[in-house]
Amino acid sequence: MKASEVIKKILAEHGEITEVYWVACGGSLIDLYPSHFMLTVESAKTSSGWHTAKEFLVATPKKLGKHSLVVMCSHSGNTKEAVDSAILAHERGAAVVTLTDNAGSKADDPRFITWVYPWGDGVPTAEVPLGICPMLVAELLRAQEGFDKYDALVKGIAQMDDIIAKAKVKVNAELGEKFADLCEKNKFFYILGSGANFSQTYGFAICSLMEMQWQNCCYIHSGEYFHGPFECTEPGVFYFLQMGSSSARVMDERALAFLKTHTDQLMVLDALEYGMGEVDEGVRAYLEPALFYAMNVELRAARGKRFDHSPEIRRYMGIEQY
Amino acid sequence: MKASEVIKKILAEHGEITEVYWVACGGSLIDLYPSHFMLTVESAKTSSGWHTAKEFLVATPKKLGKHSLVVMCSHSGNTKEAVDSAILAHERGAAVVTLTDNAGSKADDPRFITWVYPWGDGVPTAEVPLGICPMLVAELLRAQEGFDKYDALVKGIAQMDDIIAKAKVKVNAELGEKFADLCEKNKFFYILGSGANFSQTYGFAICSLMEMQWQNCCYIHSGEYFHGPFECTEPGVFYFLQMGSSSARVMDERALAFLKTHTDQLMVLDALEYGMGEVDEGVRAYLEPALFYAMNVELRAARGKRFDHSPEIRRYMGIEQY
Repeated sequence: MKASEVIKKILAEHGEITEVYWVACGGSLIDLYPSHFMLTVESAKTSSGWHTAKEFLVATPKKLGKHSLVVMCSHSGNTKEAVDSAILAHERGAAVVTLTDNAGSKADDPRFITWVYPWGDGVPTAEVPLGICPMLVAELLRAQEGFDKYDALVKGIAQMDDIIAKAKVKVNAELGEKFADLCEKNKFFYILGSGANFSQTYGFAICSLMEMQWQNCCYIHSGEYFHGPFECTEPGVFYFLQMGSSSARVMDERALAFLKTHTDQLMVLDALEYGMGEVDEGVRAYLEPALFYAMNVELRAARGKRFDHSPEIRRYMGIEQY
Repeated sequence: MKASEVIKKILAEHGEITEVYWVACGGSLIDLYPSHFMLTVESAKTSSGWHTAKEFLVATPKKLGKHSLVVMCSHSGNTKEAVDSAILAHERGAAVVTLTDNAGSKADDPRFITWVYPWGDGVPTAEVPLGICPMLVAELLRAQEGFDKYDALVKGIAQMDDIIAKAKVKVNAELGEKFADLCEKNKFFYILGSGANFSQTYGFAICSLMEMQWQNCCYIHSGEYFHGPFECTEPGVFYFLQMGSSSARVMDERALAFLKTHTDQLMVLDALEYGMGEVDEGVRAYLEPALFYAMNVELRAARGKRFDHSPEIRRYMGIEQY
């Protein structure tokens, strides 16, 4: 499937798209955020909303209608509230794109344009939601209002696989053991990030750590940190700072300066030291969440090894009724 | 100042408003969220964005322009990134309303429509941002597209003061000591909420607890809870669930059912048991954050008393350079 064809089909049927809603749950919702962020920053025509699926169902935007595009992602394809959101959007006349890893699932339905993506080691960034969705945005922008960063984005997506491959080696050498040590010392800690990366700050907390490691932690936006949360900072409290490479970086830098002098438990992952400098500055913000996601995977594996807790283990999800 | 006059003036100068951006930091950002939520749900014409101020400056929406309204709130009136956001919005041609408690501050500037609000015990909900902003939304809706819940909203705002007064007595009698006990037993805990109330879930965490009590904690959306965070739940882990009274309540109820059987450390504050049932169902969602805010104030005071830690104490904010 090609993003350009998806957008062409949508515009042929819906005339114009004036708002896009990104709807999913948990890890899939996290994967949609960079594209929500990108559309908000780059579009003079189309507004963007990002909604956890059940909230989209019970507090539905009144604007949802013929000129809306809903992009729904469900990895399993069967998450009830996510599928219900796509159905609601279809009934309201919106264009609906569903992304799923599971062909034949409920998300894979003729009412929607369903994009089945592959998953696992070695699958290129371009083929998973973190690469597909920015291209959907780029094609929508190009078709409706022009997008002068189009070529840079296409090139940037292609660059990510090599950047990530090198970064995996580096993060394991430099931060894996350190992170496992810090997890042994700290029953609870904070993760900081900003911009589109904040999705991976949240994702590291709720997916990689809470879900897959049963590790208590909290996610804080680097900009918001100074408007309350920093009062908790003191020696003995561990902070993991995800430093971005885009315009939001100034918030991470401000947090870094404070953290350096106010805690003795600090770990920093700087995207500029992990290859993001190779990508065009104008599109880095939308792509570096893919780098942070990959780093989160390595770090949770390092913790899992130390604690003898495989990231595959669940005690409730998909096991109990809830 | 009257919301109707503010909107009238804005529409006279800007013709129409096609998007509203709510921009602030920390506690002020939290106070803007219910109105962002309301506009998203209730408007078929105007989109809504909610941005921490520094991020608004470094990742500015391209749509920001003549037909945008930026509502900026700064309690002190001098928070640099918030004031800079208002200036940027003005320079881009947007209408700018600034809310501040501080007449003569940088937020109080002739380039903006500045609404100076009173603060402190006994100030009615109608006169603070949690009451002013829903009325700005209501007047904008009424002027541009009609709003059939207008009377219900006006009535609801007037009802909140009595509801809150009674709720303060009740929460201190029923939950104050219990919360202080649970804080003594738990060095870290989770707060859950959903819908517009999620702003006060976040606010209780970052303002009332992290900032004012140096209490480590984390905020989780009740709907997202099942997509990762619930794997951390077990006996000995404390959860405080803020249950709303509006359509989002189904998410809180689902979390409640799970929490009841998976932890022995649970505290629930149910808005329906604290008077929200008196308010029209169609507008409750936009007003109950004012109830939760008032309850947060009481609970942090109860904790502060037990720990001999006044909520007024700061060690960094306004003291150090950062």
